[in-house]
Amino acid sequence: MNIYDIYVGGKFKKTKIPLLVNNPFTHKNFAQTWQAGTTELNEAIEAALAAENEMKNLPTFKKFEILRQISDELKANNEYLAGILAQESGKPMRYALGEIERAAQTFLIAAEESKRLPREYVSMDWTAPGIGKEGLIKYFPIGLVAGIAPFNFPLNLAVHKIAPAIAAGNVIILKPARSTPLSTLELAKIIDKTDLPKGAFSVLPLDRESGNQLVTDDRIKMLSFTGSPEIGWQMKQQAGRKKVLLELGGNAGVLVSESANLDLAVNKCLVGSYAYSGQVCIHVQRIYVHENVFDKFAEKFIEGTKKLKYGDPQDSDTEISSMIDENNAIRVETWVNDAENEGAKILYGGKRNGTYFEPTIITNTKKQMNVCALEIFGPVVTLEKVKNFKTGISEINDSQFGLQAGVFTDSLENMNYAFNELEVGGVIINDVPTFRVDHMPYGGLKNSGFGREGLKYSIFEQMEPKILVKPI
Amino acid sequence: MNIYDIYVGGKFKKTKIPLLVNNPFTHKNFAQTWQAGTTELNEAIEAALAAENEMKNLPTFKKFEILRQISDELKANNEYLAGILAQESGKPMRYALGEIERAAQTFLIAAEESKRLPREYVSMDWTAPGIGKEGLIKYFPIGLVAGIAPFNFPLNLAVHKIAPAIAAGNVIILKPARSTPLSTLELAKIIDKTDLPKGAFSVLPLDRESGNQLVTDDRIKMLSFTGSPEIGWQMKQQAGRKKVLLELGGNAGVLVSESANLDLAVNKCLVGSYAYSGQVCIHVQRIYVHENVFDKFAEKFIEGTKKLKYGDPQDSDTEISSMIDENNAIRVETWVNDAENEGAKILYGGKRNGTYFEPTIITNTKKQMNVCALEIFGPVVTLEKVKNFKTGISEINDSQFGLQAGVFTDSLENMNYAFNELEVGGVIINDVPTFRVDHMPYGGLKNSGFGREGLKYSIFEQMEPKILVKPI
Amino acid sequence: MNIYDIYVGGKFKKTKIPLLVNNPFTHKNFAQTWQAGTTELNEAIEAALAAENEMKNLPTFKKFEILRQISDELKANNEYLAGILAQESGKPMRYALGEIERAAQTFLIAAEESKRLPREYVSMDWTAPGIGKEGLIKYFPIGLVAGIAPFNFPLNLAVHKIAPAIAAGNVIILKPARSTPLSTLELAKIIDKTDLPKGAFSVLPLDRESGNQLVTDDRIKMLSFTGSPEIGWQMKQQAGRKKVLLELGGNAGVLVSESANLDLAVNKCLVGSYAYSGQVCIHVQRIYVHENVFDKFAEKFIEGTKKLKYGDPQDSDTEISSMIDENNAIRVETWVNDAENEGAKILYGGKRNGTYFEPTIITNTKKQMNVCALEIFGPVVTLEKVKNFKTGISEINDSQFGLQAGVFTDSLENMNYAFNELEVGGVIINDVPTFRVDHMPYGGLKNSGFGREGLKYSIFEQMEPKILVKPI
Amino acid sequence: MNIYDIYVGGKFKKTKIPLLVNNPFTHKNFAQTWQAGTTELNEAIEAALAAENEMKNLPTFKKFEILRQISDELKANNEYLAGILAQESGKPMRYALGEIERAAQTFLIAAEESKRLPREYVSMDWTAPGIGKEGLIKYFPIGLVAGIAPFNFPLNLAVHKIAPAIAAGNVIILKPARSTPLSTLELAKIIDKTDLPKGAFSVLPLDRESGNQLVTDDRIKMLSFTGSPEIGWQMKQQAGRKKVLLELGGNAGVLVSESANLDLAVNKCLVGSYAYSGQVCIHVQRIYVHENVFDKFAEKFIEGTKKLKYGDPQDSDTEISSMIDENNAIRVETWVNDAENEGAKILYGGKRNGTYFEPTIITNTKKQMNVCALEIFGPVVTLEKVKNFKTGISEINDSQFGLQAGVFTDSLENMNYAFNELEVGGVIINDVPTFRVDHMPYGGLKNSGFGREGLKYSIFEQMEPKILVKPI
Repeated sequence: MNIYDIYVGGKFKKTKIPLLVNNPFTHKNFAQTWQAGTTELNEAIEAALAAENEMKNLPTFKKFEILRQISDELKANNEYLAGILAQESGKPMRYALGEIERAAQTFLIAAEESKRLPREYVSMDWTAPGIGKEGLIKYFPIGLVAGIAPFNFPLNLAVHKIAPAIAAGNVIILKPARSTPLSTLELAKIIDKTDLPKGAFSVLPLDRESGNQLVTDDRIKMLSFTGSPEIGWQMKQQAGRKKVLLELGGNAGVLVSESANLDLAVNKCLVGSYAYSGQVCIHVQRIYVHENVFDKFAEKFIEGTKKLKYGDPQDSDTEISSMIDENNAIRVETWVNDAENEGAKILYGGKRNGTYFEPTIITNTKKQMNVCALEIFGPVVTLEKVKNFKTGISEINDSQFGLQAGVFTDSLENMNYAFNELEVGGVIINDVPTFRVDHMPYGGLKNSGFGREGLKYSIFEQMEPKILVKPI
Repeated sequence: MNIYDIYVGGKFKKTKIPLLVNNPFTHKNFAQTWQAGTTELNEAIEAALAAENEMKNLPTFKKFEILRQISDELKANNEYLAGILAQESGKPMRYALGEIERAAQTFLIAAEESKRLPREYVSMDWTAPGIGKEGLIKYFPIGLVAGIAPFNFPLNLAVHKIAPAIAAGNVIILKPARSTPLSTLELAKIIDKTDLPKGAFSVLPLDRESGNQLVTDDRIKMLSFTGSPEIGWQMKQQAGRKKVLLELGGNAGVLVSESANLDLAVNKCLVGSYAYSGQVCIHVQRIYVHENVFDKFAEKFIEGTKKLKYGDPQDSDTEISSMIDENNAIRVETWVNDAENEGAKILYGGKRNGTYFEPTIITNTKKQMNVCALEIFGPVVTLEKVKNFKTGISEINDSQFGLQAGVFTDSLENMNYAFNELEVGGVIINDVPTFRVDHMPYGGLKNSGFGREGLKYSIFEQMEPKILVKPI
Repeated sequence: MNIYDIYVGGKFKKTKIPLLVNNPFTHKNFAQTWQAGTTELNEAIEAALAAENEMKNLPTFKKFEILRQISDELKANNEYLAGILAQESGKPMRYALGEIERAAQTFLIAAEESKRLPREYVSMDWTAPGIGKEGLIKYFPIGLVAGIAPFNFPLNLAVHKIAPAIAAGNVIILKPARSTPLSTLELAKIIDKTDLPKGAFSVLPLDRESGNQLVTDDRIKMLSFTGSPEIGWQMKQQAGRKKVLLELGGNAGVLVSESANLDLAVNKCLVGSYAYSGQVCIHVQRIYVHENVFDKFAEKFIEGTKKLKYGDPQDSDTEISSMIDENNAIRVETWVNDAENEGAKILYGGKRNGTYFEPTIITNTKKQMNVCALEIFGPVVTLEKVKNFKTGISEINDSQFGLQAGVFTDSLENMNYAFNELEVGGVIINDVPTFRVDHMPYGGLKNSGFGREGLKYSIFEQMEPKILVKPI
Repeated sequence: MNIYDIYVGGKFKKTKIPLLVNNPFTHKNFAQTWQAGTTELNEAIEAALAAENEMKNLPTFKKFEILRQISDELKANNEYLAGILAQESGKPMRYALGEIERAAQTFLIAAEESKRLPREYVSMDWTAPGIGKEGLIKYFPIGLVAGIAPFNFPLNLAVHKIAPAIAAGNVIILKPARSTPLSTLELAKIIDKTDLPKGAFSVLPLDRESGNQLVTDDRIKMLSFTGSPEIGWQMKQQAGRKKVLLELGGNAGVLVSESANLDLAVNKCLVGSYAYSGQVCIHVQRIYVHENVFDKFAEKFIEGTKKLKYGDPQDSDTEISSMIDENNAIRVETWVNDAENEGAKILYGGKRNGTYFEPTIITNTKKQMNVCALEIFGPVVTLEKVKNFKTGISEINDSQFGLQAGVFTDSLENMNYAFNELEVGGVIINDVPTFRVDHMPYGGLKNSGFGREGLKYSIFEQMEPKILVKPI
């Protein structure tokens, strides 16, 4: 069994507490790493603070080379890395490969953005007191960042914290999900070979208690968390003076209007609904279809759902596989059963087998059902009819969440209405809410989050402006 | 008869050669000013060069106050100024008032933009030679600008040269059209009362020969011309080392698609076609309508054309009045007759009475007819049927000109196609090409021009970047 | 005695609890208003929420006109308003007039910025999944903002919350300091006459308990607080999901280097140290002077301090007057006495008379003394010798605060070192840290704050981005 | 002898007229290519126009990949390519390698900038006519670009036309200097292997007559020329409606002030003066030194000049070698002799040997001497004393040229004065005017040029804005 040392302040280390890593499809422990605690965390913090000044003053081209080298190495080892990712997360290879590709792209964009950090040069003499003065506004690294990543994109969502940190000149400690620590430890091996100052980056699979120190420790200047809403919002309360960025969940909606290209809508929704068993923050959870095209859409969508290929995540043609663990599969099963008991109708699927939950389509749901109101994080989608476009927009908005939404339409007026009225961070026209490219601003309104990621935006969040008012 | 002195290097002056100003509606000379020649031009140039350094170093808030004061004065005297503008140009009061309003707005935006002149602050260390360096890019005034304005918007098109010049910190000499010098001389009176350094602004109704010196004199760093294509392009050849900006003519097209709101399209086209007798660079000259809605559109459009109220430009309810002079009216008449003789059909209008030409709609035209191929600068519009959206776009593009185009559609796909394919500087959705607000980038492709106006853009054109590479 | 009604949801109202307003110089109550509680707050919140949609959709030129009208009215009534401000705050007229001027300027800039709200237009096809797509990023108003303003700039620091709120399209409830509610109630009268939708703005002199609701109420989306660090940081913990912006205190330092222009440094420091009795967040509290020029500087600075004219704030030649209340004067007295007892030497001043505290210069201080370590918010300055430039910078940094710093030098290397190393939000070269113009980014590091004001920046903080991903 | 086919419309071809390539150090023809004429030019133009639409619509990531591949290939073959460049141009290997490195960097930056083409998203409703509208401003490729490159940086100055063309989505025909066509033909081999649409790029060593067609042919939309002022300015006159960008010569000045770091100044000036025998547009031609440090500077500078190592450009330790041809060496000799005859004093060097001209320092010059007034394009520098900083700035400005200037100072006031007053495109503090990194805006004022290169800036120049005004 492969043993991964953790990465503490620039050194690969063991601890006394082994952490086994399970393959959710085979149910076997296939690798081992070490659980980190307060000792390792403090070591990492001190190493980070020691590296802070060197990071802050790293010339741009050095940061660029480091980030580009990481990007290139990820690409060069994509099959190998995707294999590990597939095993720890149960994510089918096609999607695991996509994630490695995106992580490489995320580092590449960070490399480019490190040359273009925010700066301004402004006149000061808008009133008499400013005569003879001008201002330079430069953004400086915020300092030590703590990143907390979830299991569902164990590599790329961690990279969305690490890459901007390096680009900004920060130092960072990354806590991966306990179930999926290997991708980021593989990344640590790649990063360790670059010229990144040792200590600037650590990967610590922390236990709960020391994980909490990431939230409360005053030496940490920023907390960047991707995970569940409950934990995220609680962290904001406990974070003291530090800055907090939260990427939380959602129950993303899609609206298929009368003028939509139906085949396009169906194909996009199939991926958005079931990719990685719906364990995606912007997974398609609620589909609303104009009544005039509902039947046609439903028929095609059910048909497509039927054809999904189940299998081992490590097989290249597998489209759907196990969920991350049985507890989650059982939770989804319960929610679906509850919905059915309260009057919803299952159009397709609905059954569980161990860690596997079938792709499932439900209709006749009510808003307060868990399958609608909460984040399902499973391969389940609700499909409902709407009378007109505006009603559809209202339905999507009738949620505590607001991450992204998809709208299929060719009407300019509809597009504008959707953009103006949808209470989400991203409105995707003629595609699913699941659409994300790594340079776009990404993040949610309402309970879905606080702040934005996407390289330019996450770099901005990780920096602090300073103005120099100087004579002209 | 009111006599206007010309404004030479900060002084109001007479010359030996009187210049009479004619009201094209009454055919009477109602005011007089003076023709300027080489002597006045050289005096203005020398005064401008003497004021150059003071202008360059004017604090921002001083420029702001000057520009805002001009804006406020224009607004405060709008009825009076519109009256003069109406008389010298034959422009109906409703449009003359609009022009004063826009000139005030143009100065207001210039005031605001003077605080936001282009500047950049960039890292230099993208490679090793740049280590320890950073760059400040500041835009400096280009120097002496020559502005040449046409008769059709005698105030606001002059202001589009003057206001950016002041905002940028330049000095400027403005040559109005010989037929419409009064608006800018009234403006000179307003400007003279501000703190603008004397000499920084002159208004010279130059004769042809000395006008040509504006093109060839090396002391002038930039020539900003609004007028006819022939003269504009010739100037570019003769301008030596100076920068040239050309705002020339067009034969703007409109496409009314199947998904268009027809009433909106008709109402917008009525204004775009006939306002100020079509003597507008972005006047609607060619209307293409989808065959399925052509008849409906034609009917409503003819009906609307019939209702236009002809009268004295100084009457507040006049909608259409005389053209600038009889020569132009005769030219339009000839082109319309020629078209008819070559097979075109006149749906409405087509007759001339002195300086007045009726609002006219022609169909069954051919591309090579003057009414299609050249800029008509009269109240004449061609109205043709198209098979589909793409054909309509091709028809609009089949022209030597490319200023703006209007497209009436609710289809997102159509909008995108139009934006990508139309060979113009501005694509206006659900409005006529005649749409212009003074802060938007405005200017043409192909034979229609060179460079862009609109405050931010014209200021940018009137400035020269300089980089300071300094240690970090 | 003049009675001011409070401004609740667009209506001027009385409550059952009178609130008397005291003139700290005369010690007399000269006006009265009403204390607001939960009832008024809930009324204001509901009115605000009712106005939210109208505010969000206000056309730009409407917002511009409203903001410009407010700016013009403030200017037109500056003497009157400054008189009230001087009375409620004890601020000398020269500074009170300056504050009205700045508030007018703040609204003017907000008017301009309302036209230039942040927006981006970006390509999406950086990888294959983005082919055929592009992104529009528009910033939308965040919703209901709660602003809390302090006594020391009762008008302009409130305006730094109100003006960006209107520019952004938000609705806002403003809580003035209990001792200085009149300036903002006068502002409410001005705003009430504009076209701002009723309910979009309220001014509530809240009691402590209902004031706390501003922090905890979930309907409020953002809390913008200017005040003391203790209260500010506590609010951040209790703010739930809302965004928090904190403008807190400091103990700003000045470094006078060998190459400094000493006369300039002295004159600037006199104003920075004593204006409004040092009751300014960026008041000069700690002056460090290079040992080679220390004696010369000290002599001139003491001399200048002696000449300050004490008097009634309403007299136009008064330079220094009463502090806000006797408690604060006593607090300053205690700190100064403590310092003296612990070995510091008072070079000038040091005495209290009722609410008046003399301009005071102390030397031989130690870092842990309150006069150094805490925010004195009084007319007291420490003056110390440093060996070289770098030491001086370290001294300034040796503080829990980091708002702004002033550096007097002609050395490029020194300037760069200061900008890179000073842990503050603003480094002011050849001027005091007290320098602030209203469009620059303003805010502190460390315990001095969280986020930035200055129109463009505060507007940005009050908005939420949304991306539209659309077909090309 | 190696034979290079020329690259016409995506095909490598021979013509009937051989063109021999000479090594200026060995005086031997070491390679051969073919002279292109009207036939090849028209073929290239037609192929370019045929590829135009595909180039315009290339997805961003495709352009990125093409540009990055070119960059990588240049780096991977740097020794080989530098060897060819050294032979055709006589440039010492150390500098030839630097040029390959920079060309790779230029393509890399172009790759990055292709993702960040200029775009704007603006509100339109600043006045009532804009209600309900907003604007998208997108920059489109200008079309067919003609690039003309000089012999002195045969690769990188060509790349400054080619790389932005590809990034912008343009098609381009490149005319290399007749003496140095091989670098760009090697580049063509690299580009031909990428996915760049065939026809989008051609390299034609044109004869004079067909070269002139690049200026006059209307199908070409932009002419980007780097070369001599005489030819450049003449081209501007003959270019018809096309856009023209001119990068011309200079006689760059350096000012060494009293507060300068002298060793730094000397070392930088040695490279700036003699690198590639001064055949560089921003070569240090005129050095002005404050009288108090003149003697010290002069001594060190002469000493450094003496140590320069002469040799074969292909040797890695060669610092100075032959000039491009004997005609140019004779021209430089004549100018130096003339100066001596008119009273100037040669402090070092002054002799010619075939194509080699010694590094030469002259003092006591007069402004009208060719060595001062014209661009020497040889290893000759004038060294003069100045009384104070302002005089030094005036001396540098007393020239028909204005490309870049270097200023050695630690005074903030001096730096600001230099930036404000120097009539050049770039002011380089504590470095020579020869400083250029490829992403900075580069170009001259006065007779030195028209427009700016540097990727972001040259891309901007090669694009045309179009605004879409759409409903909100």
